[in-house]
Amino acid sequence: MPAQNTLNGVNVDQLVGTIEAIKANPDLAKFKFRAKTEWINGGHSRTRIQSFYGAGSEDASRSESFYLEGDEPPVLLGKNAGPNAVEAVLHALASCLSVGFIYNAAAQGIQVEALSFDLEGDLDLHAFLGLSDKPRPGYENIRITYHVKSDVPREKLVALCDYVQKTSPVLDIIRNPVPVIVNLAN
Amino acid sequence: MPAQNTLNGVNVDQLVGTIEAIKANPDLAKFKFRAKTEWINGGHSRTRIQSFYGAGSEDASRSESFYLEGDEPPVLLGKNAGPNAVEAVLHALASCLSVGFIYNAAAQGIQVEALSFDLEGDLDLHAFLGLSDKPRPGYENIRITYHVKSDVPREKLVALCDYVQKTSPVLDIIRNPVPVIVNLAN
Repeated sequence: MPAQNTLNGVNVDQLVGTIEAIKANPDLAKFKFRAKTEWINGGHSRTRIQSFYGAGSEDASRSESFYLEGDEPPVLLGKNAGPNAVEAVLHALASCLSVGFIYNAAAQGIQVEALSFDLEGDLDLHAFLGLSDKPRPGYENIRITYHVKSDVPREKLVALCDYVQKTSPVLDIIRNPVPVIVNLAN
Repeated sequence: MPAQNTLNGVNVDQLVGTIEAIKANPDLAKFKFRAKTEWINGGHSRTRIQSFYGAGSEDASRSESFYLEGDEPPVLLGKNAGPNAVEAVLHALASCLSVGFIYNAAAQGIQVEALSFDLEGDLDLHAFLGLSDKPRPGYENIRITYHVKSDVPREKLVALCDYVQKTSPVLDIIRNPVPVIVNLAN
């Protein structure tokens, strides 16, 4: 069996194969991701993540669920059972940019030695507390700094950052409007 | 010492006190949330969350960090070390709606016996894989269903759901554009 063509921990042959398969059958690119969240007490909730649909079928790779805790710190009336919801947004954003950067680097033959992100977002509580509808309820802005260690020229890394910004699912979700349909079950 | 006025696990006296304090000093409502994310290998990254600024000072309530794992499933070239970034978005959304619903219910004297959420989002991989810029990279739409158990009339729960939609930070972040400033460190 030939050695797998792997870079940055990414199987580049599988990546190329995935792209070719989707070119041949565009429906393979359609995914449905899911979560189920249960309120525990006060600010504390727990999210269970396991199943999803994609590449033409229900995924069967996860034998167990992932659980994510959410809570508020005491100053926001919680007990620190987990990070809060807007902190989880920062995690989702950096996790997405990490995958995008590493996969695209692998596809371009760029070896990455280290990659990390620092994130900070500004949020004013007036809207959440019902005191005003301005400033907006969510982040007024988010700042994110990439730290990359790689031997390639800096302009290649800049170009890769720019490309990842155009294709990152979570960056798109945050920067642009997503329709959210909310329903209260009977 | 008088008993605390608590409903749904929320200290209502503290909630009222927080609102009054912010009315007196609006700057107390300004928060800065943070995260630091480190790439591990392939699709796998790990986010550390601990410090934040709010209510006029750096928070000191967390003696330890929270760690969140992010990875992709094998069909997306990962090893299932954690939920992926767009699944984490669903967690952030439901965690936020849970806090908003429970805190506002407590403020209105509504006792909630149980609360859970089912979420699903549609995402097409063409943009992420660089095959097309349409459909968009992020969720085309997200559906969320509340399940609420409470003795109050349904119209009160409907009104509460509507109110929470107007004031939820993460719902605002997803439904409306947030400026994200991306920087590559030297």
